[in-house]
This record gives sequence, structure tokens and C-alpha cells, in this order.
Amino acid sequence: MKKYKVGILGATGTVGQRFIQLLEGHPQFEVTALAASDRSAGKPYAEACAWKLNGAIPESVRDITVQPIEPPLDCDLVFSSLPSSVARETEEAFARAGYPVISNSSSYRMDEDVPLLIAEINAEHLDLIDVQRQKRGFSKGFIVTNPNCAVVSFAPPLAAIHRKFGVESAIVTTMQAVSGAGYPGVSSMDIVDNVVPYIAGEEPKVETEAQKILGTFADGAIQKADFSVSAQCFRVNVLDGHTCSVRVNLKEQATLEDLVTAMKEFPSLGLHSSPKTFIEVMDEPNRPQPRVDRDAGDGMTITVGRVFPDTVFDYRFVSLSHNTVRGAAGSAILNAELLIDRRII
Amino acid sequence: MKKYKVGILGATGTVGQRFIQLLEGHPQFEVTALAASDRSAGKPYAEACAWKLNGAIPESVRDITVQPIEPPLDCDLVFSSLPSSVARETEEAFARAGYPVISNSSSYRMDEDVPLLIAEINAEHLDLIDVQRQKRGFSKGFIVTNPNCAVVSFAPPLAAIHRKFGVESAIVTTMQAVSGAGYPGVSSMDIVDNVVPYIAGEEPKVETEAQKILGTFADGAIQKADFSVSAQCFRVNVLDGHTCSVRVNLKEQATLEDLVTAMKEFPSLGLHSSPKTFIEVMDEPNRPQPRVDRDAGDGMTITVGRVFPDTVFDYRFVSLSHNTVRGAAGSAILNAELLIDRRII
Amino acid sequence: MKKYKVGILGATGTVGQRFIQLLEGHPQFEVTALAASDRSAGKPYAEACAWKLNGAIPESVRDITVQPIEPPLDCDLVFSSLPSSVARETEEAFARAGYPVISNSSSYRMDEDVPLLIAEINAEHLDLIDVQRQKRGFSKGFIVTNPNCAVVSFAPPLAAIHRKFGVESAIVTTMQAVSGAGYPGVSSMDIVDNVVPYIAGEEPKVETEAQKILGTFADGAIQKADFSVSAQCFRVNVLDGHTCSVRVNLKEQATLEDLVTAMKEFPSLGLHSSPKTFIEVMDEPNRPQPRVDRDAGDGMTITVGRVFPDTVFDYRFVSLSHNTVRGAAGSAILNAELLIDRRII
Amino acid sequence: MKKYKVGILGATGTVGQRFIQLLEGHPQFEVTALAASDRSAGKPYAEACAWKLNGAIPESVRDITVQPIEPPLDCDLVFSSLPSSVARETEEAFARAGYPVISNSSSYRMDEDVPLLIAEINAEHLDLIDVQRQKRGFSKGFIVTNPNCAVVSFAPPLAAIHRKFGVESAIVTTMQAVSGAGYPGVSSMDIVDNVVPYIAGEEPKVETEAQKILGTFADGAIQKADFSVSAQCFRVNVLDGHTCSVRVNLKEQATLEDLVTAMKEFPSLGLHSSPKTFIEVMDEPNRPQPRVDRDAGDGMTITVGRVFPDTVFDYRFVSLSHNTVRGAAGSAILNAELLIDRRII
Repeated sequence: MKKYKVGILGATGTVGQRFIQLLEGHPQFEVTALAASDRSAGKPYAEACAWKLNGAIPESVRDITVQPIEPPLDCDLVFSSLPSSVARETEEAFARAGYPVISNSSSYRMDEDVPLLIAEINAEHLDLIDVQRQKRGFSKGFIVTNPNCAVVSFAPPLAAIHRKFGVESAIVTTMQAVSGAGYPGVSSMDIVDNVVPYIAGEEPKVETEAQKILGTFADGAIQKADFSVSAQCFRVNVLDGHTCSVRVNLKEQATLEDLVTAMKEFPSLGLHSSPKTFIEVMDEPNRPQPRVDRDAGDGMTITVGRVFPDTVFDYRFVSLSHNTVRGAAGSAILNAELLIDRRII
Repeated sequence: MKKYKVGILGATGTVGQRFIQLLEGHPQFEVTALAASDRSAGKPYAEACAWKLNGAIPESVRDITVQPIEPPLDCDLVFSSLPSSVARETEEAFARAGYPVISNSSSYRMDEDVPLLIAEINAEHLDLIDVQRQKRGFSKGFIVTNPNCAVVSFAPPLAAIHRKFGVESAIVTTMQAVSGAGYPGVSSMDIVDNVVPYIAGEEPKVETEAQKILGTFADGAIQKADFSVSAQCFRVNVLDGHTCSVRVNLKEQATLEDLVTAMKEFPSLGLHSSPKTFIEVMDEPNRPQPRVDRDAGDGMTITVGRVFPDTVFDYRFVSLSHNTVRGAAGSAILNAELLIDRRII
Repeated sequence: MKKYKVGILGATGTVGQRFIQLLEGHPQFEVTALAASDRSAGKPYAEACAWKLNGAIPESVRDITVQPIEPPLDCDLVFSSLPSSVARETEEAFARAGYPVISNSSSYRMDEDVPLLIAEINAEHLDLIDVQRQKRGFSKGFIVTNPNCAVVSFAPPLAAIHRKFGVESAIVTTMQAVSGAGYPGVSSMDIVDNVVPYIAGEEPKVETEAQKILGTFADGAIQKADFSVSAQCFRVNVLDGHTCSVRVNLKEQATLEDLVTAMKEFPSLGLHSSPKTFIEVMDEPNRPQPRVDRDAGDGMTITVGRVFPDTVFDYRFVSLSHNTVRGAAGSAILNAELLIDRRII
Repeated sequence: MKKYKVGILGATGTVGQRFIQLLEGHPQFEVTALAASDRSAGKPYAEACAWKLNGAIPESVRDITVQPIEPPLDCDLVFSSLPSSVARETEEAFARAGYPVISNSSSYRMDEDVPLLIAEINAEHLDLIDVQRQKRGFSKGFIVTNPNCAVVSFAPPLAAIHRKFGVESAIVTTMQAVSGAGYPGVSSMDIVDNVVPYIAGEEPKVETEAQKILGTFADGAIQKADFSVSAQCFRVNVLDGHTCSVRVNLKEQATLEDLVTAMKEFPSLGLHSSPKTFIEVMDEPNRPQPRVDRDAGDGMTITVGRVFPDTVFDYRFVSLSHNTVRGAAGSAILNAELLIDRRII
């Protein structure tokens, strides 16, 4: 199998580290270039990076010299986890220079000509790439994004429901892990024995991204799904794993069993990073829980539980995903695998 | 001022301890009798009780001998924090023996002839006491209850809104502190780096109690308020303080300013345990937070923040209260002060 | 390779679950019998057990019916994680009935004729088994124990030092994880935002077990090592991983480099559960840390750091191990592998 | 009573906030000047400060305009909690300009002519002020410091022992709260489910400050106490309250009862911020604990427990204090009260 050379933009950050960890031993990708801010550039990765994940820095990247975040890099594609302040300009520069940019940043997510992709849900949105290239004058390069980490925790069960019965509206309350804020991110003084009812910029993202993901592609554009989402976002004292409390109103009637079946049967793809089960519906009354369930399917499975009729909406449930794997680096890698599978890369 | 002699049923539990702490130095009450399970009965309180609150056991109760939980006790009224398994029978026995029973237990909350009281909100429900005495054949005694601790966190702002504009429906997601489960309660192995999406029996209580509290008393009965509540209840890694994420639909239109004003102007009572402000509305984007705000008004103020128009419902907000003070012992004591003020005791 | 049939005594507890998790897919062992208290006996394991480890209960044991804790069980050897209150009598019954008992319980650890084994350190103590059989009239069965989980965190570096330079005395302060107390074990109300300076019965164990482990076997008995240990034991807000702060006085002079070399070169065994590195010495100033390093060597490596000259003793260091893997089930399984390797089983 | 006008250097930091909280309503002091870094200067305090303590910013300081950190300030004395990088130069400037500087910074602690003061222990070191003025050419101003927050947790019981029986050596392992690192300080990603065995620069401070505090003043200089201290310092998942595990060797023999009596009888001063009991010795086997005991004596009492004979040293014990009250702002305020009492201010 051909190995693609991979560059990582923002390689020293929390998500950058997760890219490196997940790409270690990957059959299709080999990390050949690491780019980070000026402060890190010029140093060996092992020295530039304050590694925060469990286990050691993979040997294969320890000695790679960190480069400035600008093309050219010695690679076939780049994964980006740049902060949104610099992502917009930099990712465009890479796309223009001919690199496929698979981005975890928020900058381009809502641009009309940029796919906002959950590989299992809206692969047909990849047809936007042609539109994008034409509009922006990219030749070989392009930008594909994956959603906000909280959105990834509830969009899959919502998609399963939407496809079968139509979603009319959804109410989401998130309880998000501290790793979602990067490092150092959330101060311990803010989260020990505490809950914080605010994450800067998060609620609008959670309220808008799902409609685009579940939209339909036709005539060179995405028609957004016509439901509305309400989001209240909280930071809780959890290391990894975003938990969502969800109520949903349907357009068509469905039984509880219908709903559960729709989720369980939502197909996983057969790609390398695909979990065996995309959406796992648990019967135990006290699941899913972030510490216990975030690593399901090596962090790529969405776990769902407490699916019940609701007293105000039609149904309620709880969903959870690993925010730096399925909610960030893992989803981006899966997107890259899909792009190869579709021969777009 | 006359001092009333007070007995505490379930004196060694978490809420029992809070009763003792809050009654220390109270101008109207003097703790004269402590009752707890057979295991504790016969021992001095300081020996029977594994004191879990900050600070030491008050000197005034250290040497009181714990008695079995049955009348007679040497007191004018009893506060009860009995587990629901024994509360029903025991509280009735005390009421029948002539004691006012001010109860934090769930057993009688939804009984038609028992007031479910938040002193600031539905004092007029105290007229049920006559109905109750007649129906049950109590002469001097009676039972008054206070709501579930999670309900107390959002019912006050809901009441402020309901009175002015009418509540049509409400969606509540709770993030509840571990002290709500008593001691030992929640295992550390369940809550370190975790969220638990289940609290046994909690969601139905949260969904039903508010309508009774906000109901109207007429013709000897309470007509429940005709809105519906949806509740999903979570346990989070917080010691004290229940946080609620709330969306609300109104019957009449109201501006954001109307809503905030209704909350801020909801009057506090002038009783000893009344906070200066009943509902405090905070402007900071990241408040209220349980560790920082649970002690507002000595734990008796409800703090509210992030009041905004919602994308699906009319409005959203976050509310918080101290679950073992305002949500349990503090509310019961305030109810007793109200009963004295109304000359019912 | 022959597969040995394995029974687990105390199969539903925290350590029992870890046994099952670690034995899943083990090349030499197959779990064939699960025994637990009367409350669990008769039920399928998946129903009897409140599984607390990450991931699901292995399929291979879900349907095994839990049996009472008494011989006979259908197996070649038993692993025991019984509470000490029942371990003494029960483990003897199994040994007398012909079963090798590899025990994680504390009951027999300090008995003169029972090996207290860390496989890498004192395998020669297995010669005690003959003494034990003779003394107790066991024919085929016997009892082998592994040390207290806190002892396992510092005994290996101490052994490395003792063998080369002789330990004169050691001062140990432990910071122990909540999982060491089992489930439900430590109440969340005791450990959120807190440290508890007491673990029942722990300090004497930590002060006495190391001398036996590092003792020499001669003339049918173990001559304990003649150093003294001081232990203060604390419970901290950590899920897994015991951290030890250690000072040590030596009998012979050694340089810092000598000390580090002695630790690094202490050989691992080539058994299935052996980590590649038995003692890993870290150079980073802020390591080892329980969350980051407890899984080193799949939880079987002891990590050591901050090895420095001390201002009062000769040297100081910090050591850490995974308390339910290397400190309990993992060490017991490694001991069983050693027994097979030595043809004692 | 005359009210002294007080300035606070570093007013927006964690300790600066604690100064303001503790000085609210103080009978001898009135906060009249607040100084902080350029970023804050010119703004009203309520706007410049991200208040992190429970409760609201005191009304009396909300509208004070923050000034740059340089003399003159409108006040009679200054409390300083400047970071050590700027403290040395700035505190000297204030002293030279005639202000008594009561400092919580580490810059001058070990200078020969600067008192390192715990008011109850070494008030006689205040005679150094004359030496200091002469040496540095200060006229009215001077610098007095209080010790490192971890030192304050064990120095008082050590002082009680040293005075009666002489300390020969002490071994200290600290478990320190996150608030000791200021705000944002310790990242949540470093401390959730974790212990960090390193605090930059801390161990040398803990090993050297006690000898100076317990030294004797004679002939214009302090003769340090001639014992040695070994310190290993850990950060644990606790908000406030440093816990110390201590072993001590004595010069003279003492019984356990002697030791406890020496601690209990160590006198508190009768000053405004003095706790009723300076050193509280607890009998409960599981105390002191930071969450439960840090607020003893309004955060000014040192709590001690688990005083026992040790197996290697003479005795062991556990001690604890509130690191931002007794360990920082509270001690500095008490020092200022002592200076007034001694008519030095």
C-alpha cells in the first residue's frame, strides 16, 4: 500500500500531539513534516513539544525538526490544528500551494464551498471540492474540515434520526472536557470542585454546524437542513470526552425502538480508522460516561444511552464522544482515508 | 423572643448535619432532641455522627444522646431528613402525635393535602394544613415539605417568569453535586474524571414538583400549573451546588429585560434565614459557578446567569443553588420561620 | 502451549475485574471458574458484576456462572483477591484441596513459610513452598502472595539499591489512588478537593513487607533484610497509580550515577507479562506522574524520577506504579507465569 | 483606633485578592491604594481584576483606580505579593521611599538583614530592622517578609518542638494546593486525576527557610538553627491547603505526650488576626484534611494530626495550613499588626 507523506500544522498543540499519536504505525500515512509557531521552529520535535498525552513521544517523530507554518513542506497532504486566529490565511496558502488541507480548525467550516465532513454522514459533500477549486482558483489543493468537537458528540445520532424521520428541532446541553481547550487551557483554579457555564464562541458553533453537515448537496451547493438547534455549553471536571444531553422533535412519528434501530444500524465505513460500530447504543441506565466510554472503538465510536420518550419533546438521549480523537484528530484522519478511498487524494 | 425546641429526625446524615450547623445560634430555635437509626441511638451525638461538614460539631449538640426515631421527643417541632424508605410512616407518626413535621424527605411531597413549599413562592399553600388535619385526623401536628434539591435550583426563576408571563414548557438539564447523594453516597471511582448521566428516581421528581409548587390554592386543593417540564439529571464532580441549564417557552411575550427584571424583583421575605436577594442575576458571561456562587446569601440565594433568547425556545438561562442549604436544610428552616410568622406554629 | 485453567476468587471486586481484563487473550491461562460472595453466586458474571474498568466485560466470561468461594472449582490454579477477613480460611482450604493459590490478599504475606513475591526480585523465595507444604500438610497445593500495592511502588528501586550498596533505612510517604480501596471504597465526599492522611492498616504493611521481600532464603527460612522503613500513607484524588516520595540511607557509598544505573539495569524477566523495562528512570524534572506514567509497560513498569542527593539522607527519589496492575492483579499473574516457568505449577 | 492607610502591590493576583478580602472590615487598616502591572494600571479595580475568590469583590475597593507599581502611593504601609522577578527592585524602592514593606514575595526572605517572620515564633527578629535601615540607608521604610507557604505549614509545630527539645533534622514531604501557583497557574490538564512531583524552586526554599525562622538574634545578626531539612514537594488536586508529612529527630528525649503538649501550648498572640489556637492537635486518625481543616481559626490555625513515634526518626506527624491565608496574606497582615503593636509602624 502506498504511504502518503503527511505534514502537521500546529504539531505541538494538544490536537497536534493526538495526530502524531494516532498516525504512529498507520498503514497509509507517514509523518514527514511538523510545523508549529516561531517559538518551536528549528528545534527537534521532542524538545519543542510539551507532550501531554499518556505514553512517550513516538520515536519516529522525536528528531524531526519543527518548521515554520508555511509552504512548502515535504509532504503529500497536511493535517491542520491551527488556532483559528492564524488558520484562515495559512490553510489557504497551503491549499493554493497544492496541498490537500484536512483541517480541524473552525475557520472554513461554515464557508459555502468547504465540506464540513463527518465521513460516515455526508461523504457526498466532497463534491464541493470541485466548486471550491473553481471559486478560489486552487489547482491541486483544497480544504476539507471536520466539525467542532461538541457537535461530533451528538450529530451522529441526530443524523441517524434525521435520515429516517426528519429532525424538526433539537435542544443540546453539553458537558465538555478540559482537553477541548488545549494546553494549558482551563486553569485548575477554575475547574476543581466546579462547573463553568461558558466556553467562548462555542454555542453558536454547536447551533449552526449540524444543519450544514446534514444538508443535501445539489447544483454545486449545500442546502442546509431546516431544523434549529439550541445549545448551552458547559465545561466540567473531566479530562477527555464530551457528554451531551439531547432532546429532539421529529417530523415523522417514530417509536422508541425505531429510533434506537436507526442509530444502531447507521453504518460504519470500512476504512482503517473506522470503528467496528459507529453509534453504540447502551442499555445500562447510567451510561454513557466519559471516563468509561470515551475509548470505545479506540475513541472513534459515538456512545449513546438513556434514549427515552421526553415529556416536552418527542425523545431525549445522552451521547458522548472522545473530543480529541473522534472530535478532532481521529475524525480528520478518517476524512483523509475517505479522500484516498474516493481517489480525491 | 421565644425559642422553640427542635428535634431532628435523621440527625447523623448529611442533611441532618446541615440542620445542626444552620441552627447553631439561631434566634428562634434550640436543638433539644436528635433522633437517628438504631445503630446510632443511645450514643452521644459526637460519637454517633461521622461529621462531614467543614468546621467542628457545635458544642451545644456534642453531648446530646441520640434517640430512636419515634415520638415522643422533647421538642416543639421536628425537622426531618429521613430516607424516603422510612419517612412515610415515621413522619405520619410524629404528625399524629402532635408535632409539626417540616420535612426534607420526598415521601409526602406530591400528596394532595401536603404543602410543597418554597417560602418565597407559595406560602398560600399553607392553607392546605387545615385540609390535611381534617383528612388525616391530625389535631395539632401536620406535615410540610420542601422540594427536591434540583428543583429548588430552577423553580425560583421559573416562578418569577410564570407569575408575569406564564410558563408554557421548560427543558432542564441538571449538573448535580455529590453531596446530594449523602454520605458515603457517590463512590470516588464513579466521579473522578467523569460525569454520570443518571441519578436514581431524580428525573420524575424534577419533572413533577414544579407544577405543584407553582399551582394555585383554591377550594381546599391545589390546581397544578399547566406547563410541562423535561428533565435530564447528571452527577458531576462538584462537592456542593446544583447547576441547571434551562430553556423556557412563555405564554405571553416578554423582552429579555422583562425577564431579568421579573427575576431580580422577586421579593425575598424578611425572615431570619432569608437572603438579602432571593434571585441574583449575574451579568458576567461565565457565571454562576457552583464553587464560586453556592454560598451567595449564606447559601440561600439562587444565582442566575446567561439569560439569553434561545434558538428553539423563547429564552435560556443557567441557575444554581446550594443543594444542602437552600436545597434542603436551609429551605426547611426558612419554612419553619414562615410557619411561626404565620402563627401556624 | 498448554493452557492452564484458572479460577478467580473474589471475581466481582476491583482487583478481580482487573484479573479478568489482564487474562483476556493470555497465551497460558484460560479463565474457567469465577467465585464470589453469596450475593453474586448463581448469577452469570455479567449480571453479578458492576464492571468498573474501562471497556466492556470480556465476552469469554460474561456467561460464566459465579460460584460460591469454596473448593472444588474447575481449574488448575486460583488467583485470589479476597478481602482479608475471609482470605485466611478460604485460601488455606483451596491450598489444602490441591490448588496453587496465587494471592493478592494480605492474610498470609508475613507468614514465615509463605513467599511474598515480586517475581523480578526474590524468585528464590519460592523454595519456601516445600517448607510450607511440609509444615501445613499440603500435598499439591500451596500459597504464594504478592505485596501491598504501595510497597510495590518503591520496593523495586529499593531492591536495586539494596543489592548493590545495602539499604540502611528508608523514609516513604505515599500518595495513593482511590482504586486501591476497591469499589465503592473512598466516598467522593472525602476526596474531592482533599487529601486524606490515613489508610486503615496501611502504614504497618508498608513498613514491614519490604524487609521480607529483600530478605535472603537459607536453611528453609527467610532472613529479613536488616533495614528499617518509615511510612506515612495518604489517599489523594487520583484514580489509579500510587506515587511514593522516598529517602534512603545506604550502607556503602554510591554516586548518583551508580544509583541510577543500578535501577536501570535491574533485569526484567522474559515472561509474558514482563515489561520490557522493569524500572524506568525518567530525566524530566516533573515525572513520574500517575495519570501519565501508570500505564508504562502496560502497567507493569515501575517509573522513577527526581533521583537526587538528599539534604538529610543519602538520596531521594520519586517512584510510581499502577496499583491494580503491577500492584495487584498484574503482579499475581506474573508470579503465576514464574511458577510455570520454574515448573512448580 | 487609628486606621492605617494600606497599599497593595500586586493587587490583582491571587494573593493580592486575598489581602483585599482579609482587610475588608479590618479595624486597623483601610485599603487606599492598589498597584498592579501596566496592563491593569488606570482601570478601576473591579474591571482590572479577574476575581477568583468566593464571594464578590468588596464594594470598598471596586472603584479604586489601579496604579503603577511605584512610589509614591497614598498609604502608610504596603503589602506586597509581587512576583519575585520584579519584587527585589520594587520593594527596595518602596522601602527607600519611606514605606514599611510587608512582603509575601521570596526575594528578600534569605537576606541577612531582613526578618523572615512568623509572628508567633520569632518576633524578636524585628530588631533586624534597625540593622537593615543602617545597612541599606533606609530612613523610615523597611522590609519584613513572611515565609514560603509550604514552610508555614510545618514550621510552627517544628518550632514548638525545637524550643523544648531541639530539632536535629526533619524530613518533609509536601502535598500542595493549586492556588499556591496563582492564577491561571496549574493547568487542569496537569492535575485532573494526577499528582505532579515538582514545583519550580520550591524544595530549596522549604529546606532553608525554617533554619532562619528558628534562628536566634544576637549581636545584630541571626544565627541560623543548626538542623537540616529535607523536602520533596508535590502538587495535588486540592484548591487550598498545603499538607505536610513530617518526620523529626530530636536533640533531647521527649515523650509523645511532651511533644503534643509543646504544640498545643505554643501561645497565639492576642492580635486582631490571631487565631484562638495557633496549633491545633487533632486526635481523629484521619485528620487534618485540607478541605475540612484549612479554614480552622479563619484560616490562621495550623492543624496537626497523626503525631506518632516513627520507625526511623523519633517522631512523625502531619501538619496543614491554608496556603493563601496563613501561608500568605493572613500572615503578612498579622505581621503588620505585630509591627503596630511593637510601635515599629
